[in-house]
Amino acid sequence: MRKSKIPEAAIKRLPVYLRVLQDAIASEIQIISSSELAERTGFSPEQIRKDLAYFGAFGTRGVGYDTALLSRRISRILGLHQGVKAALVGAGHLGYALSRYSQSRHKDVTIAAIFDVSPQKVGTEIMGIEVNHVSDMAQVCRERGIKIGIIAVPASEAQQSGELLAEAGIEAILNFAPAKLRLPPEIFVQNIDLTIELQSLAYYTSASSEDETQAE
Amino acid sequence: MRKSKIPEAAIKRLPVYLRVLQDAIASEIQIISSSELAERTGFSPEQIRKDLAYFGAFGTRGVGYDTALLSRRISRILGLHQGVKAALVGAGHLGYALSRYSQSRHKDVTIAAIFDVSPQKVGTEIMGIEVNHVSDMAQVCRERGIKIGIIAVPASEAQQSGELLAEAGIEAILNFAPAKLRLPPEIFVQNIDLTIELQSLAYYTSASSEDETQAE
Repeated sequence: MRKSKIPEAAIKRLPVYLRVLQDAIASEIQIISSSELAERTGFSPEQIRKDLAYFGAFGTRGVGYDTALLSRRISRILGLHQGVKAALVGAGHLGYALSRYSQSRHKDVTIAAIFDVSPQKVGTEIMGIEVNHVSDMAQVCRERGIKIGIIAVPASEAQQSGELLAEAGIEAILNFAPAKLRLPPEIFVQNIDLTIELQSLAYYTSASSEDETQAE
Repeated sequence: MRKSKIPEAAIKRLPVYLRVLQDAIASEIQIISSSELAERTGFSPEQIRKDLAYFGAFGTRGVGYDTALLSRRISRILGLHQGVKAALVGAGHLGYALSRYSQSRHKDVTIAAIFDVSPQKVGTEIMGIEVNHVSDMAQVCRERGIKIGIIAVPASEAQQSGELLAEAGIEAILNFAPAKLRLPPEIFVQNIDLTIELQSLAYYTSASSEDETQAE
Protein backbone atom coordinates (compact mmCIF):
# COMPACT_ATOMS: atom_id res chain seq x y z
CA MET A 1 0.00 0.00 0.00
CA ARG A 2 1.98 2.97 -1.22
CA LYS A 3 0.78 6.41 -0.18
CA SER A 4 1.65 9.82 -1.44
CA LYS A 5 -0.29 12.37 0.58
CA ILE A 6 2.51 13.19 3.00
CA PRO A 7 6.00 13.79 1.53
CA GLU A 8 8.61 11.14 2.31
CA ALA A 9 10.85 13.68 4.08
CA ALA A 10 8.02 14.59 6.45
CA ILE A 11 7.31 10.91 7.18
CA LYS A 12 10.98 10.55 8.15
CA ARG A 13 10.57 13.34 10.69
CA LEU A 14 7.48 11.85 12.36
CA PRO A 15 9.40 9.24 14.42
CA VAL A 16 11.68 12.05 15.64
CA TYR A 17 8.65 14.02 16.87
CA LEU A 18 7.28 10.83 18.39
CA ARG A 19 10.45 10.21 20.38
CA VAL A 20 10.50 13.79 21.72
CA LEU A 21 6.79 13.57 22.61
CA GLN A 22 7.25 10.25 24.40
CA ASP A 23 10.16 11.72 26.39
CA ALA A 24 7.97 14.72 27.25
CA ILE A 25 5.11 12.48 28.37
CA ALA A 26 7.55 10.50 30.53
CA SER A 27 8.50 13.82 32.15
CA GLU A 28 4.78 14.59 32.68
CA ILE A 29 4.78 17.48 30.20
CA GLN A 30 1.22 17.86 28.89
CA ILE A 31 1.61 20.72 26.43
CA ILE A 32 4.59 21.42 24.17
CA SER A 33 5.07 24.44 21.92
CA SER A 34 6.39 24.20 18.37
CA SER A 35 9.47 26.16 19.47
CA GLU A 36 10.17 23.57 22.21
CA LEU A 37 9.65 20.81 19.65
CA ALA A 38 12.06 22.68 17.40
CA GLU A 39 14.70 22.90 20.09
CA ARG A 40 14.43 19.23 20.94
CA THR A 41 14.35 17.93 17.34
CA GLY A 42 16.62 20.39 15.56
CA PHE A 43 13.94 21.17 12.93
CA SER A 44 12.59 24.70 12.48
CA PRO A 45 9.25 25.69 14.08
CA GLU A 46 7.89 26.44 10.58
CA GLN A 47 8.88 22.98 9.36
CA ILE A 48 7.23 21.38 12.36
CA ARG A 49 3.97 23.30 11.96
CA LYS A 50 3.92 22.40 8.26
CA ASP A 51 4.60 18.70 8.91
CA LEU A 52 1.99 18.39 11.62
CA ALA A 53 -0.62 20.25 9.57
CA TYR A 54 -0.45 17.45 6.96
CA PHE A 55 -2.51 15.29 9.24
CA GLY A 56 -4.67 17.93 10.81
CA ALA A 57 -2.76 18.58 14.04
CA PHE A 58 -2.65 22.35 14.35
CA GLY A 59 -2.11 22.81 18.08
CA THR A 60 -3.56 25.76 19.93
CA ARG A 61 -2.14 29.15 18.94
CA GLY A 62 0.05 30.61 21.69
CA VAL A 63 -0.23 27.43 23.75
CA GLY A 64 1.07 24.42 21.88
CA TYR A 65 0.36 20.77 21.23
CA ASP A 66 -1.16 18.26 23.62
CA THR A 67 1.69 15.75 23.97
CA ALA A 68 -0.49 12.68 24.59
CA LEU A 69 -2.90 13.48 21.76
CA LEU A 70 -0.15 14.30 19.26
CA SER A 71 1.85 11.22 20.22
CA ARG A 72 -1.21 8.97 19.70
CA ARG A 73 -1.95 10.61 16.39
CA ILE A 74 1.60 10.18 15.06
CA SER A 75 1.67 6.55 16.22
CA ARG A 76 -1.53 5.94 14.32
CA ILE A 77 -0.31 7.74 11.19
CA LEU A 78 2.80 5.60 11.20
CA GLY A 79 0.82 2.47 11.95
CA LEU A 80 2.75 1.88 15.19
CA HIS A 81 -0.27 1.95 17.53
CA GLN A 82 -0.84 -1.80 17.29
CA GLY A 83 2.81 -2.78 16.92
CA VAL A 84 4.43 -3.72 13.61
CA LYS A 85 6.32 -6.93 12.93
CA ALA A 86 9.41 -7.15 10.76
CA ALA A 87 11.22 -10.08 9.15
CA LEU A 88 15.00 -9.96 8.99
CA VAL A 89 16.70 -11.71 6.06
CA GLY A 90 20.37 -12.40 6.78
CA ALA A 91 21.69 -13.57 10.14
CA GLY A 92 25.23 -12.24 9.69
CA HIS A 93 26.93 -9.51 11.72
CA LEU A 94 24.65 -6.76 10.43
CA GLY A 95 21.57 -8.90 11.03
CA TYR A 96 22.74 -9.69 14.55
CA ALA A 97 23.35 -6.01 15.29
CA LEU A 98 19.89 -5.13 13.94
CA SER A 99 18.22 -7.82 16.07
CA ARG A 100 19.86 -6.48 19.18
CA TYR A 101 18.88 -2.92 18.31
CA SER A 102 15.31 -4.00 17.76
CA GLN A 103 15.12 -5.90 21.03
CA SER A 104 16.49 -3.08 23.13
CA ARG A 105 14.87 -0.08 21.52
CA HIS A 106 11.79 -0.11 19.33
CA LYS A 107 9.00 -1.88 21.07
CA ASP A 108 6.58 -0.65 18.40
CA VAL A 109 8.54 -2.31 15.58
CA THR A 110 9.82 -5.76 16.53
CA ILE A 111 11.79 -8.32 14.58
CA ALA A 112 9.43 -11.30 14.68
CA ALA A 113 11.26 -13.65 12.29
CA ILE A 114 14.81 -14.18 11.04
CA PHE A 115 15.79 -16.01 7.87
CA ASP A 116 19.06 -17.32 6.47
CA VAL A 117 20.26 -20.03 4.10
CA SER A 118 23.32 -21.19 6.06
CA PRO A 119 22.93 -24.64 7.70
CA GLN A 120 25.13 -23.29 10.52
CA LYS A 121 22.59 -20.57 11.28
CA VAL A 122 19.20 -22.13 10.55
CA GLY A 123 17.81 -23.59 13.78
CA THR A 124 19.93 -21.36 16.05
CA GLU A 125 18.45 -18.45 18.02
CA ILE A 126 19.29 -14.74 17.90
CA MET A 127 17.89 -12.68 20.76
CA GLY A 128 15.32 -15.40 21.40
CA ILE A 129 14.12 -15.65 17.79
CA GLU A 130 14.74 -18.88 15.90
CA VAL A 131 16.50 -18.53 12.55
CA ASN A 132 14.35 -20.13 9.84
CA HIS A 133 15.37 -21.20 6.35
CA VAL A 134 14.41 -18.69 3.65
CA SER A 135 12.26 -21.38 2.01
CA ASP A 136 9.86 -21.05 4.97
CA MET A 137 9.55 -17.29 4.57
CA ALA A 138 6.07 -17.10 3.01
CA GLN A 139 4.54 -19.44 5.56
CA VAL A 140 6.19 -17.88 8.63
CA CYS A 141 5.50 -14.29 7.57
CA ARG A 142 1.84 -14.96 6.85
CA GLU A 143 1.35 -16.89 10.09
CA ARG A 144 2.91 -14.11 12.15
CA GLY A 145 1.31 -11.19 10.28
CA ILE A 146 4.64 -9.68 9.28
CA LYS A 147 4.47 -6.58 7.07
CA ILE A 148 8.03 -5.22 7.00
CA GLY A 149 11.16 -6.87 5.63
CA ILE A 150 14.78 -6.02 6.37
CA ILE A 151 17.41 -7.18 3.87
CA ALA A 152 20.85 -7.67 5.44
CA VAL A 153 22.41 -10.08 2.96
CA PRO A 154 25.26 -9.59 0.44
CA ALA A 155 24.39 -7.65 -2.74
CA SER A 156 24.40 -10.84 -4.83
CA GLU A 157 21.52 -12.31 -2.79
CA ALA A 158 19.49 -9.13 -2.31
CA GLN A 159 17.20 -9.44 -5.34
CA GLN A 160 16.21 -13.00 -4.45
CA SER A 161 15.57 -11.99 -0.83
CA GLY A 162 13.37 -9.15 -2.05
CA GLU A 163 11.38 -11.48 -4.30
CA LEU A 164 10.84 -13.94 -1.46
CA LEU A 165 9.69 -11.12 0.84
CA ALA A 166 7.29 -9.94 -1.89
CA GLU A 167 5.87 -13.46 -2.21
CA ALA A 168 5.50 -13.56 1.57
CA GLY A 169 3.16 -10.55 1.45
CA ILE A 170 5.61 -7.98 2.82
CA GLU A 171 4.55 -4.38 2.07
CA ALA A 172 7.70 -2.36 2.85
CA ILE A 173 11.40 -3.23 2.79
CA LEU A 174 14.48 -1.68 4.42
CA ASN A 175 17.36 -2.73 2.16
CA PHE A 176 20.93 -2.58 3.47
CA ALA A 177 22.41 -4.45 0.50
CA PRO A 178 24.15 -2.22 -2.05
CA ALA A 179 21.87 -3.41 -4.85
CA LYS A 180 18.86 -1.88 -6.59
CA LEU A 181 15.85 -4.14 -6.07
CA ARG A 182 13.37 -4.70 -8.90
CA LEU A 183 10.08 -5.47 -7.19
CA PRO A 184 6.36 -4.84 -7.79
CA PRO A 185 5.69 -1.08 -7.51
CA GLU A 186 3.24 -1.50 -4.61
CA ILE A 187 6.12 -2.57 -2.36
CA PHE A 188 7.86 0.41 -0.75
CA VAL A 189 11.65 0.02 -0.67
CA GLN A 190 13.91 2.21 1.47
CA ASN A 191 17.60 1.74 0.71
CA ILE A 192 20.27 2.39 3.31
CA ASP A 193 23.53 2.32 1.45
CA LEU A 194 26.46 2.67 3.81
CA THR A 195 28.83 3.33 0.91
CA ILE A 196 26.81 6.36 -0.09
CA GLU A 197 26.61 7.61 3.49
CA LEU A 198 30.40 7.42 3.85
CA GLN A 199 31.07 8.96 0.43
CA SER A 200 28.76 11.90 1.06
CA LEU A 201 30.33 12.40 4.51
CA ALA A 202 33.70 12.98 2.85
CA TYR A 203 32.27 16.20 1.40
CA TYR A 204 32.22 17.69 4.89
CA THR A 205 35.95 17.14 5.42
CA SER A 206 38.90 19.14 4.18
CA ALA A 207 39.51 16.41 1.58
CA SER A 208 36.74 17.97 -0.47
CA SER A 209 37.79 20.66 -2.92
CA GLU A 210 34.58 22.31 -3.99
CA ASP A 211 36.30 25.65 -4.49
CA GLU A 212 38.56 24.33 -7.23
CA THR A 213 35.81 22.91 -9.39
CA GLN A 214 35.67 25.90 -11.67
CA ALA A 215 39.34 25.42 -12.50
CA GLU A 216 38.87 22.19 -14.43
CA MET B 1 35.12 22.39 7.69
CA ARG B 2 31.37 22.76 7.31
CA LYS B 3 30.09 23.96 3.94
CA SER B 4 26.75 25.25 2.88
CA LYS B 5 26.90 26.04 -0.83
CA ILE B 6 25.36 22.77 -2.00
CA PRO B 7 22.23 21.50 -0.17
CA GLU B 8 22.69 18.38 1.94
CA ALA B 9 20.11 16.46 -0.09
CA ALA B 10 22.07 17.13 -3.29
CA ILE B 11 25.32 16.01 -1.65
CA LYS B 12 23.60 12.73 -0.76
CA ARG B 13 22.73 12.19 -4.42
CA LEU B 14 26.30 12.77 -5.69
CA PRO B 15 27.61 9.30 -4.70
CA VAL B 16 24.62 7.79 -6.53
CA TYR B 17 25.56 9.67 -9.70
CA LEU B 18 29.17 8.65 -9.15
CA ARG B 19 28.29 4.95 -8.99
CA VAL B 20 26.21 5.13 -12.17
CA LEU B 21 28.98 7.04 -13.94
CA GLN B 22 31.63 4.53 -12.85
CA ASP B 23 29.44 1.69 -14.09
CA ALA B 24 28.99 3.53 -17.39
CA ILE B 25 32.75 4.09 -17.72
CA ALA B 26 33.33 0.39 -17.02
CA SER B 27 30.93 -0.32 -19.92
CA GLU B 28 32.93 2.12 -22.11
CA ILE B 29 30.08 4.64 -22.31
CA GLN B 30 31.62 8.06 -22.94
CA ILE B 31 28.54 10.28 -22.98
CA ILE B 32 25.41 9.94 -20.85
CA SER B 33 22.23 12.01 -21.12
CA SER B 34 20.37 13.34 -18.08
CA SER B 35 17.43 11.08 -19.00
CA GLU B 36 19.74 8.05 -18.94
CA LEU B 37 21.13 9.23 -15.61
CA ALA B 38 17.54 9.60 -14.44
CA GLU B 39 16.63 6.09 -15.47
CA ARG B 40 19.68 4.59 -13.76
CA THR B 41 19.40 6.60 -10.53
CA GLY B 42 15.66 6.97 -10.11
CA PHE B 43 15.91 10.79 -9.79
CA SER B 44 14.15 13.10 -12.25
CA PRO B 45 16.11 14.64 -15.17
CA GLU B 46 15.24 18.11 -13.77
CA GLN B 47 16.63 17.18 -10.35
CA ILE B 48 19.80 15.86 -11.93
CA ARG B 49 20.37 18.96 -14.07
CA LYS B 50 19.80 21.15 -11.01
CA ASP B 51 22.17 19.12 -8.81
CA LEU B 52 24.95 19.04 -11.37
CA ALA B 53 24.60 22.75 -12.11
CA TYR B 54 25.56 23.49 -8.48
CA PHE B 55 29.14 22.75 -9.33
CA GLY B 56 29.19 24.01 -12.87
CA ALA B 57 28.62 20.77 -14.80
CA PHE B 58 26.03 21.64 -17.41
CA GLY B 59 26.63 18.97 -20.02
CA THR B 60 26.08 19.64 -23.71
CA ARG B 61 22.50 20.36 -24.70
CA GLY B 62 21.02 17.51 -26.72
CA VAL B 63 24.10 15.35 -26.17
CA GLY B 64 24.79 14.76 -22.49
CA TYR B 65 27.55 14.57 -19.94
CA ASP B 66 31.08 13.30 -20.48
CA THR B 67 31.15 10.33 -18.08
CA ALA B 68 34.87 10.48 -17.29
CA LEU B 69 34.88 14.25 -16.76
CA LEU B 70 31.74 14.25 -14.62
CA SER B 71 32.94 11.29 -12.55
CA ARG B 72 36.28 13.06 -11.86
CA ARG B 73 34.48 16.25 -10.94
CA ILE B 74 32.09 14.54 -8.50
CA SER B 75 34.97 12.62 -6.92
CA ARG B 76 36.79 15.88 -6.36
CA ILE B 77 33.70 17.66 -4.98
CA LEU B 78 33.23 14.85 -2.50
CA GLY B 79 36.93 14.76 -1.68
CA LEU B 80 37.22 11.15 -2.79
CA HIS B 81 39.85 11.70 -5.48
CA GLN B 82 42.74 11.12 -3.09
CA GLY B 83 41.01 8.54 -0.89
CA VAL B 84 39.52 9.30 2.53
CA LYS B 85 40.33 7.44 5.73
CA ALA B 86 37.79 6.64 8.42
CA ALA B 87 38.13 5.55 12.04
CA LEU B 88 35.58 3.08 13.40
CA VAL B 89 34.72 3.28 17.10
CA GLY B 90 33.11 0.07 18.34
CA ALA B 91 34.24 -3.42 17.29
CA GLY B 92 30.90 -5.15 17.96
CA HIS B 93 28.63 -6.80 15.39
CA LEU B 94 27.72 -3.52 13.68
CA GLY B 95 31.38 -2.46 13.60
CA TYR B 96 32.39 -5.80 12.16
CA ALA B 97 29.70 -5.56 9.47
CA LEU B 98 30.83 -2.03 8.60
CA SER B 99 34.48 -3.11 8.33
CA ARG B 100 33.58 -5.85 5.94
CA TYR B 101 31.42 -3.50 3.85
CA SER B 102 34.27 -1.04 3.70
CA GLN B 103 36.82 -3.64 2.65
CA SER B 104 34.69 -5.06 -0.13
CA ARG B 105 33.09 -1.96 -1.56
CA HIS B 106 34.33 1.57 -1.14
CA LYS B 107 37.92 1.83 -2.14
CA ASP B 108 37.67 5.61 -1.97
CA VAL B 109 36.62 5.60 1.71
CA THR B 110 38.52 3.03 3.76
CA ILE B 111 38.39 2.16 7.43
CA ALA B 112 41.99 2.79 8.47
CA ALA B 113 41.65 2.35 12.26
CA ILE B 114 39.33 0.55 14.68
CA PHE B 115 38.90 1.39 18.37
CA ASP B 116 37.24 -0.34 21.29
CA VAL B 117 37.56 -0.47 25.09
CA SER B 118 37.09 -4.21 25.58
CA PRO B 119 40.28 -6.09 26.59
CA GLN B 120 38.91 -9.03 24.58
CA LYS B 121 38.90 -6.94 21.41
CA VAL B 122 41.89 -4.60 21.73
CA GLY B 123 44.87 -6.21 20.02
CA THR B 124 42.77 -8.47 17.77
CA GLU B 125 42.35 -7.84 14.03
CA ILE B 126 39.20 -7.19 11.99
CA MET B 127 39.64 -7.46 8.24
CA GLY B 128 43.38 -6.96 8.68
CA ILE B 129 43.08 -3.83 10.85
CA GLU B 130 44.29 -4.02 14.44
CA VAL B 131 41.78 -2.94 17.09
CA ASN B 132 43.34 -0.17 19.22
CA HIS B 133 42.24 1.06 22.62
CA VAL B 134 40.20 4.29 22.48
CA SER B 135 42.87 6.00 24.57
CA ASP B 136 45.18 5.82 21.53
CA MET B 137 42.61 7.46 19.25
CA ALA B 138 44.16 10.92 18.97
CA GLN B 139 47.63 9.59 18.22
CA VAL B 140 46.54 6.92 15.73
CA CYS B 141 44.12 9.22 13.86
CA ARG B 142 46.69 11.99 13.51
CA GLU B 143 49.44 9.61 12.41
CA ARG B 144 47.21 8.05 9.74
CA GLY B 145 45.57 11.29 8.55
CA ILE B 146 42.07 10.11 9.40
CA LYS B 147 39.28 12.65 8.81
CA ILE B 148 36.04 10.66 9.22
CA GLY B 149 34.75 8.90 12.33
CA ILE B 150 32.09 6.18 12.53
CA ILE B 151 30.39 5.63 15.87
CA ALA B 152 29.07 2.07 16.33
CA VAL B 153 28.91 1.88 20.13
CA PRO B 154 25.89 1.72 22.49
CA ALA B 155 24.03 5.00 23.08
CA SER B 156 25.53 5.36 26.56
CA GLU B 157 29.06 5.55 25.13
CA ALA B 158 28.32 7.64 22.05
CA GLN B 159 28.96 11.10 23.49
CA GLN B 160 32.35 10.09 24.87
CA SER B 161 33.29 8.48 21.54
CA GLY B 162 32.29 11.68 19.76
CA GLU B 163 34.42 13.80 22.08
CA LEU B 164 37.43 11.53 21.59
CA LEU B 165 36.98 11.71 17.80
CA ALA B 166 36.77 15.51 18.03
CA GLU B 167 40.01 15.61 20.05
CA ALA B 168 41.58 13.35 17.43
CA GLY B 169 40.94 15.98 14.74
CA ILE B 170 38.06 14.19 12.99
CA GLU B 171 35.99 16.53 10.78
CA ALA B 172 32.85 14.49 10.05
CA ILE B 173 31.08 11.70 11.93
CA LEU B 174 28.62 8.99 10.90
CA ASN B 175 26.73 8.17 14.12
CA PHE B 176 24.82 4.89 14.38
CA ALA B 177 24.15 5.23 18.11
CA PRO B 178 20.63 6.40 18.99
CA ALA B 179 21.96 9.43 20.87
CA LYS B 180 22.22 13.11 20.00
CA LEU B 181 25.89 14.16 20.07
CA ARG B 182 26.90 17.53 21.50
CA LEU B 183 30.09 18.44 19.68
CA PRO B 184 31.81 21.60 18.38
CA PRO B 185 29.72 23.03 15.50
CA GLU B 186 32.54 22.72 12.98
CA ILE B 187 32.22 18.92 13.14
CA PHE B 188 29.61 17.59 10.74
CA VAL B 189 27.49 14.80 12.25
CA GLN B 190 25.26 12.51 10.17
CA ASN B 191 22.98 10.33 12.29
CA ILE B 192 21.72 6.99 11.02
CA ASP B 193 19.02 5.94 13.43
CA LEU B 194 17.74 2.48 12.61
CA THR B 195 14.75 2.91 14.95
CA ILE B 196 13.60 5.91 12.94
CA GLU B 197 14.11 4.10 9.65
CA LEU B 198 11.97 1.19 10.83
CA GLN B 199 9.27 3.40 12.33
CA SER B 200 8.94 5.51 9.21
CA LEU B 201 8.80 2.34 7.10
CA ALA B 202 5.67 1.25 8.98
CA TYR B 203 3.86 4.18 7.35
CA TYR B 204 4.09 2.40 4.01
CA THR B 205 2.29 -0.71 5.27
CA SER B 206 -1.39 -1.33 5.79
CA ALA B 207 -0.81 -0.94 9.57
CA SER B 208 -0.84 2.82 8.98
CA SER B 209 -4.25 4.48 9.21
CA GLU B 210 -3.71 7.91 7.79
CA ASP B 211 -7.27 8.10 6.52
CA GLU B 212 -8.77 7.88 9.99
CA THR B 213 -6.83 10.75 11.48
CA GLN B 214 -9.63 13.23 11.04
CA ALA B 215 -11.88 11.02 13.13
CA GLU B 216 -10.07 11.58 16.41
